[in-house]
Amino acid sequence: MGKWIWYRGEFEAYHNLQLHFRRESYGMARPPFWDVPMPYPFVEFTKTFTAKCGGEFVCYAKGDGVVILDEVFYPLEQAVPYSAGEHTVSVKIGNPGGLPCIYIENEAVSTDESWRVTHGGAAPVLAGATPVFSSPNDDPQKFPFSYERVEAVSCKEYQGGMLFDFGRELFGSVVIDALSAPATVFYGESVEEALAGKGWGKCTVWEDVETAGILKSRAFRYLYVTKPATLHAEFEFLPLEKRGRFSCNEEGVKTIWDVCADTFHLCSREFFLDGIKRDRWVWGGDARQSILISDYLFADPEIVKRTILALLPKDRVHQHVNTINDYSAFLIISVAEFYRSFGDAEFVSFVLPRVRMLYDYIVSRCDEQGFVVEREGDWIFIDWGTIDQSGPLSAEQILLWKTHLSMAELTGEEAYLDRANTLRERIFTRFWSENGFLDTYPELSSHITRHANILAVLFDFVDEQQADRILHRVLENPGVDAITTPYFKLYELMALCRLGKLTVAQEKLEGYWGAMLALGATSMWEEFKPEEGLPAGYAMYGEEFGKSLCHAWSSGPIYFLGRYCLGVSSTAPGFAAFTVAPNPGRYTWFEGVVPTVRGDIRINYRDGKLTVFAPFDGGTLLWNGSEWDIPANEELVV
Amino acid sequence: MGKWIWYRGEFEAYHNLQLHFRRESYGMARPPFWDVPMPYPFVEFTKTFTAKCGGEFVCYAKGDGVVILDEVFYPLEQAVPYSAGEHTVSVKIGNPGGLPCIYIENEAVSTDESWRVTHGGAAPVLAGATPVFSSPNDDPQKFPFSYERVEAVSCKEYQGGMLFDFGRELFGSVVIDALSAPATVFYGESVEEALAGKGWGKCTVWEDVETAGILKSRAFRYLYVTKPATLHAEFEFLPLEKRGRFSCNEEGVKTIWDVCADTFHLCSREFFLDGIKRDRWVWGGDARQSILISDYLFADPEIVKRTILALLPKDRVHQHVNTINDYSAFLIISVAEFYRSFGDAEFVSFVLPRVRMLYDYIVSRCDEQGFVVEREGDWIFIDWGTIDQSGPLSAEQILLWKTHLSMAELTGEEAYLDRANTLRERIFTRFWSENGFLDTYPELSSHITRHANILAVLFDFVDEQQADRILHRVLENPGVDAITTPYFKLYELMALCRLGKLTVAQEKLEGYWGAMLALGATSMWEEFKPEEGLPAGYAMYGEEFGKSLCHAWSSGPIYFLGRYCLGVSSTAPGFAAFTVAPNPGRYTWFEGVVPTVRGDIRINYRDGKLTVFAPFDGGTLLWNGSEWDIPANEELVV
Repeated sequence: MGKWIWYRGEFEAYHNLQLHFRRESYGMARPPFWDVPMPYPFVEFTKTFTAKCGGEFVCYAKGDGVVILDEVFYPLEQAVPYSAGEHTVSVKIGNPGGLPCIYIENEAVSTDESWRVTHGGAAPVLAGATPVFSSPNDDPQKFPFSYERVEAVSCKEYQGGMLFDFGRELFGSVVIDALSAPATVFYGESVEEALAGKGWGKCTVWEDVETAGILKSRAFRYLYVTKPATLHAEFEFLPLEKRGRFSCNEEGVKTIWDVCADTFHLCSREFFLDGIKRDRWVWGGDARQSILISDYLFADPEIVKRTILALLPKDRVHQHVNTINDYSAFLIISVAEFYRSFGDAEFVSFVLPRVRMLYDYIVSRCDEQGFVVEREGDWIFIDWGTIDQSGPLSAEQILLWKTHLSMAELTGEEAYLDRANTLRERIFTRFWSENGFLDTYPELSSHITRHANILAVLFDFVDEQQADRILHRVLENPGVDAITTPYFKLYELMALCRLGKLTVAQEKLEGYWGAMLALGATSMWEEFKPEEGLPAGYAMYGEEFGKSLCHAWSSGPIYFLGRYCLGVSSTAPGFAAFTVAPNPGRYTWFEGVVPTVRGDIRINYRDGKLTVFAPFDGGTLLWNGSEWDIPANEELVV
Repeated sequence: MGKWIWYRGEFEAYHNLQLHFRRESYGMARPPFWDVPMPYPFVEFTKTFTAKCGGEFVCYAKGDGVVILDEVFYPLEQAVPYSAGEHTVSVKIGNPGGLPCIYIENEAVSTDESWRVTHGGAAPVLAGATPVFSSPNDDPQKFPFSYERVEAVSCKEYQGGMLFDFGRELFGSVVIDALSAPATVFYGESVEEALAGKGWGKCTVWEDVETAGILKSRAFRYLYVTKPATLHAEFEFLPLEKRGRFSCNEEGVKTIWDVCADTFHLCSREFFLDGIKRDRWVWGGDARQSILISDYLFADPEIVKRTILALLPKDRVHQHVNTINDYSAFLIISVAEFYRSFGDAEFVSFVLPRVRMLYDYIVSRCDEQGFVVEREGDWIFIDWGTIDQSGPLSAEQILLWKTHLSMAELTGEEAYLDRANTLRERIFTRFWSENGFLDTYPELSSHITRHANILAVLFDFVDEQQADRILHRVLENPGVDAITTPYFKLYELMALCRLGKLTVAQEKLEGYWGAMLALGATSMWEEFKPEEGLPAGYAMYGEEFGKSLCHAWSSGPIYFLGRYCLGVSSTAPGFAAFTVAPNPGRYTWFEGVVPTVRGDIRINYRDGKLTVFAPFDGGTLLWNGSEWDIPANEELVV
């Protein structure tokens, strides 16, 4: 069967580019502040094939170009005759600003991933394709979302116009079926936002419309149209299956888990986005958390691969991922984690040159001790908060250490381990104190924040005794400034789970996420401070409705319940080996499913009896201090 | 006065891209086989200004984006209010696939070359602009050609359709004013081509049309429309002034010079193109000759700078210019020659990082002796012909030597001279023989062709005695294969002129170029073999009408008459110093004008009296073995 093919990675480059130019707020476009690579304007596809008998094929394309069969030129979209025997076909396509791609479906030769593709004489790669685009009428320049007609659940007149409530957060196009007069359509994640009107810090997204018609895809729950109108929505989504599951005796946990899953699903589109209302950009740090969460919800390798390709540099690197040093590190760490989850060595070998380019860039900007320092154009981020940035950050160095290890994992090359070991010693020498890791050099500041200490626990940078010191002197120490963003809050919860404090995370789940739902949330928010109340709680970044109310990084419970309560983790690429180490924490019963590339792992704990089922081998159950092999396709009950 | 501004160099990148995707033949698009860089999709413009009093400005843009004045956001194309005092404005624009650019015209702040521009946080450069785009209604994405309505000089019925003759080669759009039925429009540089019909090797360019209308710009002299029609043409050209002139006692030389000038003008568009019918691409080797010719016809720095920017790599280099090793060398040599002609140190400093990148690429692919050798993806071209390529070519090494020298000239750095000197010795050791320069190593082949020997003379690589050996053993030796392309034929004529054999070039002028005109040429051809006759002489590359009949590199007489008969050459950047060394050759009288960046130099030789006039100082006249200072603005008569 023929599939549309392109220079591998360019489908992602093309859609990444489109995505980064869709941000809008207060009636203004907001282009990104980092470089986004353009797809190559010209590519050449080649294939040698043997025809049993003569025939003819037609080559469809996006772009202009020519088909060359055995050195004879033919136009696109016209029959190309071939005889029985061996032939070489090449297709040259130019499509500046678009995605050059072709499609041939024929009994002798069809386009698929076995074709070779080059741009401007560069070393050829195997073609990129997806089974989704397998008809000549398809267009890979249009991302293959699914659509569903959705009606508002309520609609009422308001100040001469109409206020619609769809009952839940949605992403998609508003279809105005009838409009009485030119009007403005205001999009609201909250009813207050929909009614806030135009102006800086007011309603984030609105559009002036003259007549009935279809508007572009955007996020909303509420719509306010300033004149009488009738409308419906075309919900636009990625048809991903939510294979993960979790429920337990605590009332409401399933609801929270489901809302997290819906939130995360809404943010899982061309790539893992930060949120659906505002940036809709691909951020390296957010993406790394999304990749973790996705492993326990979808276990879909395609969106992870697309996200990695969107974030990696293509041909050259002159800035960090999103300009942020730590995001470059998180991206390389993610590639290694992807390999552990999916075992896709072929993909890793394709992206490895890009990963090495980014790694070399990171290392080229280190100081003479091999520490990450701030260079021109760098954004040393780690997190919003009180980290003392008067010198090199310990958190950046721990990320660099993990980056060295990830490179070792991806390449099997010892040299990276040596670098990691040397660095580890230096980090302890310069940043470790009796109170945990300092923010920076002791001669500059004795300030301690949670971040480096959390990363040290998460990455097993510290031994048990050191971890214990971090737990007591930092994580459980109210004198150390609290994390203020859900981004690092997730890492803190993960670190606590890792240190056996799952109960804290479970309590947070009900206390924190539960409180969001109690306020009427239908999706999880970018940030939540229960004390703020509403509508004050909708504000962020100094804007009245600046907060995203549907944000990927707030779906962390899916990860920590799957990883630390159900206790499933891969220990060899592609779940060739894995462990299941359940921990009920404060639940008296729980059950759940962890999806993997090899099949779904089911775990059930009830009445003191634990049941584990995996449809494949390689598993080890760790439970109550004992170990069991988990047989394939057979329930293990202990 | 406000001008449209862009990230410097991107105007050229944008139009270079458009140009490279316009090639068509036999109904098929023909994208190039090298990479063409895309413009950056997102750029940011910044300017600090002081307003004497309050006011407001409007920012126009190509692309979407936002204006930020003192950290407050405003939409494009709406009034932005400012108060008296100092302000900083930045404009972020995204235009993927297009040219992001902006325009502000205001008494307090207008867009011009003093703005700073960055892409994705890269180090800012000063903005690019041209006075041509100075109205808000302008669009720098449309190249600013001039247009002129032209009618066919004859029109007759032919096989149910109409054959139009415009009397001379043109470039522009055909405007079909009336059409009786759907038809095909065939474009011909010759009448035979216009009537050859569709099919491989037949009429190169044609278009099926349904109704009256405007067709895209193409080259033609003849048009055949298969149904009754009325039409005219919109001649599209660059309004360059032909400042150079030449005439002499030999009948017809002025006609030849004028047709060369018209040919060259037709090929001088966004950039110097090879020819106007077929590729319409920018080739490094062709461009270098065009830059030489242009110096004696237009002396317009803008088209030279555009051509250099179109050819240089932008952010990275992974292949030679047009994939050809020698073309990379010729490009660097051209930049140094541009500097000598125009003295534009500011432009040189802007392109120098790109020149260094290309130079480093060349050097990185040399062998351990510092010789250019063939690496994967390289096209070692030099010329079509019989050069023995069984080893490294002496011609490539001489070009490399000249490249080292050019780098020394551009940077003032001694190290390049050292490299050149070391290389020069090695070239003599390995390639020099009693019969001139061998093609390659003597142990591989004793074959000699003209090319390396010509370059050695042109670049003063050899001393007088060695040059003499080359003249007698190679250039005047009928046993050495003749040059078969006009491309290297020009270099051969230049070498002969340099060796005092101007007369040969003058004879060639009348014999060779004159014979083309005698056959009815209205522009100079890509190649001409008088013995072939017509229509056989229209064929090339195995195609019946494959030859371009309007080709830049056949305009060489303008160069060699200006350089060696009028004898003008710059000897310090920007004609700060120059020599005039006239040589009548076989002419009994001649007169001419050589345009320069400092003004036109006029030379007249009649009745044994030589008159030289330059409107600026720095000149030295060399005549009959004596030297004179040429006074500024005063005729020197000797």
